[in-house]
Amino acid sequence: MVAKGVLGAPISDNMTAEDIALNMKEISVAEFFEKNRHLLGYENSSKAMLTIVKEGVDNSLDACEEAGVLPELKVTVKQLGIDRFRIIMEDNGPGVIESKMALAFGKMLFGSKFHRLKQSRGKQGLGIRGAILYAQLTTGKPAKIRTSTGDSKIHDFEMLIDTVRNEPKMTLHTVAPNKERWHGVVIELEIEGVYVERAQSVPEYLKRTAIANPYAHIIFNGPNGVQKFERTTSTLPKQPKEIKPHPYGIELGILIRMIATTRSQNIRSFLMGEFSRVGGSSADQILALAKLESGRKPATIANDEAERLHKSMQMVKLIAPPTDCISPMTEALIENGLKKELEADYYVAITRPPSVYRGNPFQVEVGLAYGGKLNPNAGAELYRFANKVPLLYHQSSCAITKAVEEVDWKRYGLGQPSGSMPVGPLVVLIHFASVWVPFTSEGKEAIAAYPEIIKDIKLGIQDAGRKLAGFVRSQRKSREGRMRRQLFERYIPVVAESLEKLTGKDHSAIEVKLDVMSKSGKVIIEEPAADVSAGQAKTAEPAEDEGGDE
Amino acid sequence: MVAKGVLGAPISDNMTAEDIALNMKEISVAEFFEKNRHLLGYENSSKAMLTIVKEGVDNSLDACEEAGVLPELKVTVKQLGIDRFRIIMEDNGPGVIESKMALAFGKMLFGSKFHRLKQSRGKQGLGIRGAILYAQLTTGKPAKIRTSTGDSKIHDFEMLIDTVRNEPKMTLHTVAPNKERWHGVVIELEIEGVYVERAQSVPEYLKRTAIANPYAHIIFNGPNGVQKFERTTSTLPKQPKEIKPHPYGIELGILIRMIATTRSQNIRSFLMGEFSRVGGSSADQILALAKLESGRKPATIANDEAERLHKSMQMVKLIAPPTDCISPMTEALIENGLKKELEADYYVAITRPPSVYRGNPFQVEVGLAYGGKLNPNAGAELYRFANKVPLLYHQSSCAITKAVEEVDWKRYGLGQPSGSMPVGPLVVLIHFASVWVPFTSEGKEAIAAYPEIIKDIKLGIQDAGRKLAGFVRSQRKSREGRMRRQLFERYIPVVAESLEKLTGKDHSAIEVKLDVMSKSGKVIIEEPAADVSAGQAKTAEPAEDEGGDE
Repeated sequence: MVAKGVLGAPISDNMTAEDIALNMKEISVAEFFEKNRHLLGYENSSKAMLTIVKEGVDNSLDACEEAGVLPELKVTVKQLGIDRFRIIMEDNGPGVIESKMALAFGKMLFGSKFHRLKQSRGKQGLGIRGAILYAQLTTGKPAKIRTSTGDSKIHDFEMLIDTVRNEPKMTLHTVAPNKERWHGVVIELEIEGVYVERAQSVPEYLKRTAIANPYAHIIFNGPNGVQKFERTTSTLPKQPKEIKPHPYGIELGILIRMIATTRSQNIRSFLMGEFSRVGGSSADQILALAKLESGRKPATIANDEAERLHKSMQMVKLIAPPTDCISPMTEALIENGLKKELEADYYVAITRPPSVYRGNPFQVEVGLAYGGKLNPNAGAELYRFANKVPLLYHQSSCAITKAVEEVDWKRYGLGQPSGSMPVGPLVVLIHFASVWVPFTSEGKEAIAAYPEIIKDIKLGIQDAGRKLAGFVRSQRKSREGRMRRQLFERYIPVVAESLEKLTGKDHSAIEVKLDVMSKSGKVIIEEPAADVSAGQAKTAEPAEDEGGDE
Repeated sequence: MVAKGVLGAPISDNMTAEDIALNMKEISVAEFFEKNRHLLGYENSSKAMLTIVKEGVDNSLDACEEAGVLPELKVTVKQLGIDRFRIIMEDNGPGVIESKMALAFGKMLFGSKFHRLKQSRGKQGLGIRGAILYAQLTTGKPAKIRTSTGDSKIHDFEMLIDTVRNEPKMTLHTVAPNKERWHGVVIELEIEGVYVERAQSVPEYLKRTAIANPYAHIIFNGPNGVQKFERTTSTLPKQPKEIKPHPYGIELGILIRMIATTRSQNIRSFLMGEFSRVGGSSADQILALAKLESGRKPATIANDEAERLHKSMQMVKLIAPPTDCISPMTEALIENGLKKELEADYYVAITRPPSVYRGNPFQVEVGLAYGGKLNPNAGAELYRFANKVPLLYHQSSCAITKAVEEVDWKRYGLGQPSGSMPVGPLVVLIHFASVWVPFTSEGKEAIAAYPEIIKDIKLGIQDAGRKLAGFVRSQRKSREGRMRRQLFERYIPVVAESLEKLTGKDHSAIEVKLDVMSKSGKVIIEEPAADVSAGQAKTAEPAEDEGGDE
């Protein structure tokens, strides 16, 4: 027997198993996040403001797209005191029906998007509740919400979250007639915050959101005036479709649960009905390998049989999961977005073919903007997106950053301190789209470093990088050509005088002609370019878009 | 009215608010972490094994300390197949009573430590359930648990977690007589994993746990043999006490909830009874500032009055919160721990006075080990601890790392590439102890970068660094002295010959004497040391522990 310890503290401090049990109780998920609010992105006042706007805008865009409505969003940030703000977020989405109004905003881990395999911005049923919780924590004020589904009523209500029970507490509810059949949601929150306009800020977030969602019209009414992000296309993207899980990505524990709860009559129809890419012959192959009869009722499958089934599912050759569950930005829209927001010389965009990690389909897109007014002497700027949502925090711990740093940018004509971001007048845009983005925290700020993900991002960058390299080379060539031309022009008087002596023509006329030739680009001077002569100038082809030498 | 969008997808894909509402449902917290298991530290198979052992060991140490029992822990890792392991974790703690057995292991967000302000390793009621969930996900096998509180019964049971309902599902329960009055918990899990012995490994975790908890006896029975971590003290640390929240750290939303649920008769007794460091006169000052009568019933306090109260609470001068809620490692035990595990030349440990962030008391400790067999050409090794738990992952995003890198180590005689870890034969141990450690994720691997925390860690390092600097200087001096002595010895024959000419004594006898003097350290040669002479040698003091010059 081990003796009771010799304690510094009095013996009465010691607890028995009964004492400990007496203190055990359930922790509501709302209490959990109230105490751990940094997990949701609320670790400081300026980040809190950005997180709130992000959660609101994400929800609005998801809802509009699901309903097939072109998004019209308005975000208002009004300063009420030194660190006191009112934030109003308004959309024209489908709204929320009366019976779910309170829950949709006031209960954490409640929502429509968690259980399905389909790309969306929100997933976990936490986001907007976190925003409401933060408001009530810092100012004690309820959220004010207005919504209508476009029927005859507009609902206005105020609510708090009862964190101990993780339940909404509606403190006011009025109904008004809806003559104009308005539909959408307006959320108003009063918070303690700090407003900034630097990199990790609300306006920067909205700017990048506009790049990734060019079919959205967003108005930002901030403390320093109104900013509008016009839509550049009126076509909503093709809606992603919900898919079933793929056998390669399913975990044994999940398979056992699916077997326990399926309504399928037999294990063969279970495989065919509840998984992607399992047809009759694949199902037969799997069952033969697992030594299970196809007529077995799922309820009779024991755990060791399920384990055999699971192994067999990984061994049979199956088509990759369908990818219409993913909605990429598309190459054209990425280029448009970059052109709209950045003054560069060269733009390129790549949409990779879809790929798979842990059974989850994903797709990577890369956009590069180079030259022009971008800063040539700084590290490249990185725009990270996950399911069309800009990621502004935790850059250093993101799989996207890792991938960008692992690429050898020197091949594409850029500087790069070892293992760092490339240096040059460059913006790198990476979009990661998936039915399930593996975020490193509930605040959804960085993507976990799965090797399959990093590899595919690097392939995308390399594709885009090779195209960029051609431009960087030609740009360097034209810069060098320009320098050589300038050198040539300095010698024009000397050359003209020599030619006067040779031809007897007036040197000033020759000078004018040589000058025009040089400036119009007709003089192509090859590499060594050491001795410049009229003979070389003669070999020059006339440029297609020349100004003419009248 | 905004038109329905021109869609690429067929119009029937569009969902109405009713459709969306139909899909809304509650997400159980167990489902949430099942899908987000990387948040709990299960993103890959080798980390998973470490996380499981960590959760088990943390719980065991907490339980033993609460019950005043000297911890006897045994961790067994047995390889069953290529990537299949059995992990058994055993303690001699107080055990779990029968009515709470299932919940204590099978319900997430359930526990005794979340709601109290007192230092402990576990807090959230997630850890060990995450381990059980991971086992059932990867192998489908239930957890096997044995426990007794030291009464007449030993319980053996097997259980799974019903993730959809976040409830335990006991699949077996047998009771045996407990003749020896054994008490404790044994948990056995079968998992998919990878066993490693490098840095981020189970043995490394246990080694560091032993450093921070020298009163624990830990046996590790691993795939490559048995390793024992003996205790170096049989005295349990003074038990931390539970404290009440301090007015400076309370958030408005929490204050409002406390007011709503208090049993205090009036607002004055509420302030005095439910907060630390609020006596009668502080309460009166606060209430006067807030313009609230001290006799007001808490239930009658409106939200704007609560807000005034909250502001006033921040303005009145109060003593810092009590710090007996914190259990530091102590300077002596840190030094012992470092000495036991590392062969260095110099050790120093500093326990800082307690400090406060967001109203939460915390205390920083720093230990340094320098020289000896530590690698002089690598970056210093960093041992991070939070509430005596070693942190092995996410080093780069931890407040501790940030603080270490921000210190100017060159002052203490060490190399340091700008903004990086110092370079030299150095181990830096940092312990952060608090009633609430602000971890950056549920996996509890890094501390959030609160400025107050970083500042205090830096102060601790500077304290320890100044002491280290003295040693580094004297070590350099003695190395330089040694080099000079070697130089001197090379000239002994020349000097001896000169002395022979001067004194007439035989030069070989003089040579022997000079050599003995030099080797015994009697010759202290001062800085310039250009011309070595017998006169200088004469001024040398006899060394205390000299070998004698027979």
